Amino acid sequence: MDPALAALGEFGLIGLIRDRIRQRSPGTRLGIGDDAAVLEAAPGHEVLVTTDMLLEDVHFKRAWGCSRELGRKTLAVNVSDIAAMGGRPHHAFLALGIPCQGITLAELEAVLAGLEDEAAATEVTLAGGDTCASRSGLVLCVTLLGSVPAGQAVRRSGARAGDGVWVTGGLGGSAAGFVALERGLRPGMAWPADLPRPSWLGSAEEADLRSAMAAHLTPTPRLAAGQALRRCATAMIDLSDGLASDLRHICAESGVGALVRAGGIPLHPGALVAARWTGRDGLDLALRGGEDYELLFTSRADPRPVLAGAAPGLPVVRIGEVVDGPPAPTLETGDGRTEALAGGFDHLRHAT
Amino acid sequence: MDPALAALGEFGLIGLIRDRIRQRSPGTRLGIGDDAAVLEAAPGHEVLVTTDMLLEDVHFKRAWGCSRELGRKTLAVNVSDIAAMGGRPHHAFLALGIPCQGITLAELEAVLAGLEDEAAATEVTLAGGDTCASRSGLVLCVTLLGSVPAGQAVRRSGARAGDGVWVTGGLGGSAAGFVALERGLRPGMAWPADLPRPSWLGSAEEADLRSAMAAHLTPTPRLAAGQALRRCATAMIDLSDGLASDLRHICAESGVGALVRAGGIPLHPGALVAARWTGRDGLDLALRGGEDYELLFTSRADPRPVLAGAAPGLPVVRIGEVVDGPPAPTLETGDGRTEALAGGFDHLRHAT
Repeated sequence: MDPALAALGEFGLIGLIRDRIRQRSPGTRLGIGDDAAVLEAAPGHEVLVTTDMLLEDVHFKRAWGCSRELGRKTLAVNVSDIAAMGGRPHHAFLALGIPCQGITLAELEAVLAGLEDEAAATEVTLAGGDTCASRSGLVLCVTLLGSVPAGQAVRRSGARAGDGVWVTGGLGGSAAGFVALERGLRPGMAWPADLPRPSWLGSAEEADLRSAMAAHLTPTPRLAAGQALRRCATAMIDLSDGLASDLRHICAESGVGALVRAGGIPLHPGALVAARWTGRDGLDLALRGGEDYELLFTSRADPRPVLAGAAPGLPVVRIGEVVDGPPAPTLETGDGRTEALAGGFDHLRHAT
Repeated sequence: MDPALAALGEFGLIGLIRDRIRQRSPGTRLGIGDDAAVLEAAPGHEVLVTTDMLLEDVHFKRAWGCSRELGRKTLAVNVSDIAAMGGRPHHAFLALGIPCQGITLAELEAVLAGLEDEAAATEVTLAGGDTCASRSGLVLCVTLLGSVPAGQAVRRSGARAGDGVWVTGGLGGSAAGFVALERGLRPGMAWPADLPRPSWLGSAEEADLRSAMAAHLTPTPRLAAGQALRRCATAMIDLSDGLASDLRHICAESGVGALVRAGGIPLHPGALVAARWTGRDGLDLALRGGEDYELLFTSRADPRPVLAGAAPGLPVVRIGEVVDGPPAPTLETGDGRTEALAGGFDHLRHAT
């Protein structure tokens, strides 16, 4: 254990966090420093709760040196879940497992500063948590509470045949960024001297890879879009496991099929570069890479007028439609053939 | 990864959990199976939120073979926090990090069954969570929501000079049980053949150690007592880090001192046996061992009539009083001398 961290101790660290956080949410009766936080629910609203855990060497590598980005992402992936319900986030709770060896107080402060960056950007208050030592790696588990006007949460279960299937942003960027990080590229640092560079990979392609790294390290939850989509989305989910897996959830919960056209799926430009670099298929990164944290939703009406006002500049495209049939998605490939849209990230199968 | 677990996959496991849990809480608009749970807050009440994480080889050892107890404890330690606010628990969220190697589906099912045991005992509904692979041991992080009538949460900050300091149950049992487990004793199994047994350690002493093991493995949160104590407690905390540390929190948050008499501290009988067995001091186990999950509270009135009705049979004793002075507790030892009541479990210092 870093001597500075051991000297501070568990309660010194909690005090340090408590001193640095800012109150941003109405309804905080009691925050950090008691057995539980005390919150006042917003009248006329329901409470949303989500939890997402990031584990070292599964979701991130400390060797990447991106601690501040990690703190930011830890909260952002939870905000994305609240956005996918059409809600507003309010209060976050952080359970922090601190490795007994190898982590410094400075590294931990950077993680906490990143979390506070995202809290500021999304108007969230850190209202409690748990701090303990870890005999393994760094553990970051955030639970996030939010709110939504009563009865207006957008579920996964509301898709009906005839609705369009829509997606925000470009897909596959996060998976492409992961490839770049794994190969040694780092944000803000030049191309590594020991990393072979293909002749076709010019400055434009490198910029696309760097944008993909940013998408992986600091995803932007589509909060304004998610809230606006309460007006027209019939079902919604955030893209955390890949389009294939996440659309399957909408189909399963709604009891409908979905037909998606491969050619209509918007790819992050970095996905094409990473695909060429690794010999993989860019579309596969988009369908099964995961962690894009864009919104996938179904809507009977055209959502573009709604989104143009709430999230100007955010791309949104129709990639297919909801159909009657078995509750699973189908992919229409370029030559007009269709196939089951299978796969996507599965933690337990991936780990086998 | 256990082939049965890999075959089930992440979403199969979530489906299995979803199929087995029971709805016990009013206000569950939407539970497991969406991006976030949707809950309705109880009118006239405030929302309580707490989170507690248990990590392998820090809080428990899988080699102990007590998976069902572990699941139970994972929820119980959170219920204890809600109890210490005077509240009722409602909805739990489980973030589960599953080791890539060495854990079986059966073991995991036992953990989940234990969690459901405790949920049934405390009228809690598992309403969501997160499941992922772990490269580093089993991770169990529960966030628990509860409620308390508006304005009636019992904080750590309300102690005033002249209040009595009270504690439920017997202390040091959990630390004693940990000693017994570390030395090889297991619940429901005979004394191990390869474990030397002191001549003085008869069947009565062994029974005390086994009761201490139960206190460590399956602590009983003092839920009815905590709720009843809203009527008279001025400050309250659950004993998770040991009396020394937890009373220090009450003093710090309330801005008062506290004088505690060593002779008045109720010891779990197992603490005396474990102390003799290890050459440690039984009082030290009670003051600094932690994880007893009894309630420590201050009260101007005698709380015994209130507790006799709400939690019949639960011992409660006055161990000292709140005093003016520096915001830290003092221990009066047998010979009338006083000393600072220091120490208690600190995760970061313990890990050094």
